[in-house]
Amino acid sequence: MTRIAIVGVAGRMGRTLVNAVQQDAGATLAGGVVEPGSSLVGTDLGELAGVGRLDVTAVDSLEAILDDVDVLIDFTSPQVTLANLAACAAYGKAIVIGTTGLDDEQLAELDGYRDRVPMVFAPNMSVGVNLTLKLLETAAKALGDEGYDIEVIESHHRHKVDAPSGTALKMGEVVADALERPLKEYGVFERVGQCGPRSDREIGFATVRAGDIVGEHTVMFATEGERIEITHKASSRMTFAKGAVRAARWVAGQGNGRYSMQDVLGL
Amino acid sequence: MTRIAIVGVAGRMGRTLVNAVQQDAGATLAGGVVEPGSSLVGTDLGELAGVGRLDVTAVDSLEAILDDVDVLIDFTSPQVTLANLAACAAYGKAIVIGTTGLDDEQLAELDGYRDRVPMVFAPNMSVGVNLTLKLLETAAKALGDEGYDIEVIESHHRHKVDAPSGTALKMGEVVADALERPLKEYGVFERVGQCGPRSDREIGFATVRAGDIVGEHTVMFATEGERIEITHKASSRMTFAKGAVRAARWVAGQGNGRYSMQDVLGL
Amino acid sequence: MTRIAIVGVAGRMGRTLVNAVQQDAGATLAGGVVEPGSSLVGTDLGELAGVGRLDVTAVDSLEAILDDVDVLIDFTSPQVTLANLAACAAYGKAIVIGTTGLDDEQLAELDGYRDRVPMVFAPNMSVGVNLTLKLLETAAKALGDEGYDIEVIESHHRHKVDAPSGTALKMGEVVADALERPLKEYGVFERVGQCGPRSDREIGFATVRAGDIVGEHTVMFATEGERIEITHKASSRMTFAKGAVRAARWVAGQGNGRYSMQDVLGL
Amino acid sequence: MTRIAIVGVAGRMGRTLVNAVQQDAGATLAGGVVEPGSSLVGTDLGELAGVGRLDVTAVDSLEAILDDVDVLIDFTSPQVTLANLAACAAYGKAIVIGTTGLDDEQLAELDGYRDRVPMVFAPNMSVGVNLTLKLLETAAKALGDEGYDIEVIESHHRHKVDAPSGTALKMGEVVADALERPLKEYGVFERVGQCGPRSDREIGFATVRAGDIVGEHTVMFATEGERIEITHKASSRMTFAKGAVRAARWVAGQGNGRYSMQDVLGL
Repeated sequence: MTRIAIVGVAGRMGRTLVNAVQQDAGATLAGGVVEPGSSLVGTDLGELAGVGRLDVTAVDSLEAILDDVDVLIDFTSPQVTLANLAACAAYGKAIVIGTTGLDDEQLAELDGYRDRVPMVFAPNMSVGVNLTLKLLETAAKALGDEGYDIEVIESHHRHKVDAPSGTALKMGEVVADALERPLKEYGVFERVGQCGPRSDREIGFATVRAGDIVGEHTVMFATEGERIEITHKASSRMTFAKGAVRAARWVAGQGNGRYSMQDVLGL
Repeated sequence: MTRIAIVGVAGRMGRTLVNAVQQDAGATLAGGVVEPGSSLVGTDLGELAGVGRLDVTAVDSLEAILDDVDVLIDFTSPQVTLANLAACAAYGKAIVIGTTGLDDEQLAELDGYRDRVPMVFAPNMSVGVNLTLKLLETAAKALGDEGYDIEVIESHHRHKVDAPSGTALKMGEVVADALERPLKEYGVFERVGQCGPRSDREIGFATVRAGDIVGEHTVMFATEGERIEITHKASSRMTFAKGAVRAARWVAGQGNGRYSMQDVLGL
Repeated sequence: MTRIAIVGVAGRMGRTLVNAVQQDAGATLAGGVVEPGSSLVGTDLGELAGVGRLDVTAVDSLEAILDDVDVLIDFTSPQVTLANLAACAAYGKAIVIGTTGLDDEQLAELDGYRDRVPMVFAPNMSVGVNLTLKLLETAAKALGDEGYDIEVIESHHRHKVDAPSGTALKMGEVVADALERPLKEYGVFERVGQCGPRSDREIGFATVRAGDIVGEHTVMFATEGERIEITHKASSRMTFAKGAVRAARWVAGQGNGRYSMQDVLGL
Repeated sequence: MTRIAIVGVAGRMGRTLVNAVQQDAGATLAGGVVEPGSSLVGTDLGELAGVGRLDVTAVDSLEAILDDVDVLIDFTSPQVTLANLAACAAYGKAIVIGTTGLDDEQLAELDGYRDRVPMVFAPNMSVGVNLTLKLLETAAKALGDEGYDIEVIESHHRHKVDAPSGTALKMGEVVADALERPLKEYGVFERVGQCGPRSDREIGFATVRAGDIVGEHTVMFATEGERIEITHKASSRMTFAKGAVRAARWVAGQGNGRYSMQDVLGL
């Protein structure tokens, strides 16, 4: 059983991680950290997460619990994550990092721990997204030169500030690499007005922004007579939380190093 | 039984119209016209359309058959259509016109026949599209002010030269009118790069171009917790052919005048 | 501003209701009740729900807060709901009830309060589902006799024990009523093996059970050449929570009586 | 350039094959056979198929054209196909057979030609379907033991007499084989009434029958937090026609033998 602690356990991602750990037969919840002074210190983490009493209470100091932990899971902010990395190095613990938004300097600092900590660092921990990338590569290689048009359609919630999504671009890149059609040259990101017929080799992107859509991506390969569509739909943070717990189980058995989800999944 | 003749019967739309007439219990095929000199003159229209022998043969002169016809269906070209309108006026016959691409002068000439011919003229004869417009109006009025984001997604074949499609724009306009949000002000036709979060009142459009997609339109109303999607998928020219035959049956009982599909469907 | 209290606020639906109340400009959170002896008594309801401090704390007695409340929202269990109805009658408060599973005796007891309490009682409080039923009626009346096949497809999570869902059956009934095709006679709930071609007037149902799907319903009207699909997708309890808050705002202005979501929405 | 002749060229599949041959840069139309006595003998095959004059005319005797043909494509009936196989053996020509409905005796007779004719015989010649089977195998192996529920949803036109479709069953078998869950034991083909929660290992099937749907298949892998969906949509006979032409090009270079689409595609 891998003993897992969660930092930022009071946030939405933290609560989801509690849920994911509890569902995983190979993992157990060893602790959870909230911000100093929170009214939630001392509450039961299971009750906090809405999954029933677990008899593990929220604390506001990581060091207080780290001795009894195998792996830390951290989806917080760059500065908090870097401090937690230092603690993991000092206590000889592994860490799974889903924090985003690190600048180049912070990335370099993080990378400096690769010889001192077993660490999984991944911008998208979804098992399904990582599998989808593999399927896209297979499909593109099989269909690419036989007249199939390729389109990437992605939908996200109203708050997302960029388009297309990073995952959509990653999907496009996987296809582009398989077909030797660089996205800079063949990616088409807008079609408005009299834009003319589609060219054979372009890779088109379409974007939807609405409501609370967590994240949906479809890559379509279409020719006269048929379509193949490969779709990933994230329905909640659980897709990332379950991937993180799977990564935690895996990294608990690894030596120091910086690993990706591809390493975890063996794809 | 409404007796229907089809001009341009050798083209893809013409053959589809033969099929639609044959399937309609209230209509019968009275003739079909091909281009002068075609190798198809004299062939059986049913065999030509792939639906089995109908014992009506292709001719290359409209006047040769017009006496035994109630309504002409015409999806050809502007000049041919205007000549056929003149023939209908001379013979006292009705006409259903699905021809597109008329310029202003040709539209004026067509309109000049409104007192001499019972005529249905519609850019999109699909029953489903016309119903969808009605559903969109109902949905927009019920949801519009309660925090639902509205997006229009359309997909068409690789040969289409404009975006968004005319039907997508029409759907957007119906919603915009219901909510008093003029498309010129609230329509968003591209989102690329750091475009920021979605605004509350915008109506977004997304475009897909691939393969042989005849035409798919979805209007999504999404808020936190739910989505309502109203979708129309055209799978073949039959959607237009069946609408045209329904229009032919209807216009056979009308006086001179220029009518729309809304008139035909009573929506 | 309608002052709303939530019973069962520590449960998943309770937390979602806190979120929905906070997002609604016309409502304010006046209190929340947890089970007697819970470790959550005294915690901030906003922190509990993961939306940030709201300065309203969890209590374990409804009577302690009811004076300062306009409407109670109750998604609990039949016995708890009936006790809460009695309290609302005693204090002169309104109530919105989303509790399910009442037996006939409990339903009769609930109904007995219709002259003493303004009450909204609805098995499905989703605004979108209720709108969808209206759209289905419109579509069925417009298309039903013109050769359109009707199918209802629904998907739910792996834990759901019955099929088709109650909402799918309700959708089927709305269509069946509009077309005068009783579901008992025309509903087709399974197709396995050599079942023969589809009959013209049947209404088919298909069921998917997988993962965490909150609830997706599509009604398809398909003929040769086109399909119209009307789809509702619930993505979280927020669809019910937002409907409940809308109902609470509405019922605060009503006299004693038992109301439905159709009353609330004025459809 | 592979010289292709089509038997049954006046039927819908035959006309589609003319279209597919004409679109293929590596193939040329060498002839087309119609039933003896058809009014279509002597018509131009391109005009017959609605793609413009091709200067190849319909004949009613295969032997009259076989000298100038490399490969015959045959989507007709069992008896006609067996007669054509004999002709191919006599003239030393290859054949692509999409005919279905052969009984055991006819299958044995067909198989008897494997040493005398290069032959591709496949129940489903769609390139996309065959690729989809490969993707399903990959996905099932990657996800199967990690709590993903698997469902197969298929939609076909109103005339289809069996359910689930042969292709849906084939998809289910590929997944079942990858996971060692025999369909006879784990396949669930109906869910009606109080059927209880889904079991972990079942593979569910859902069937839709409506309108003119050529054939749509989706296999869904869903767990808490995400779904992966792999979808194939056939939009016209072109999916089969293009696969047949690709098979014809391939088999023209093979020795005597009986081959499948997996052989053709090298998957």
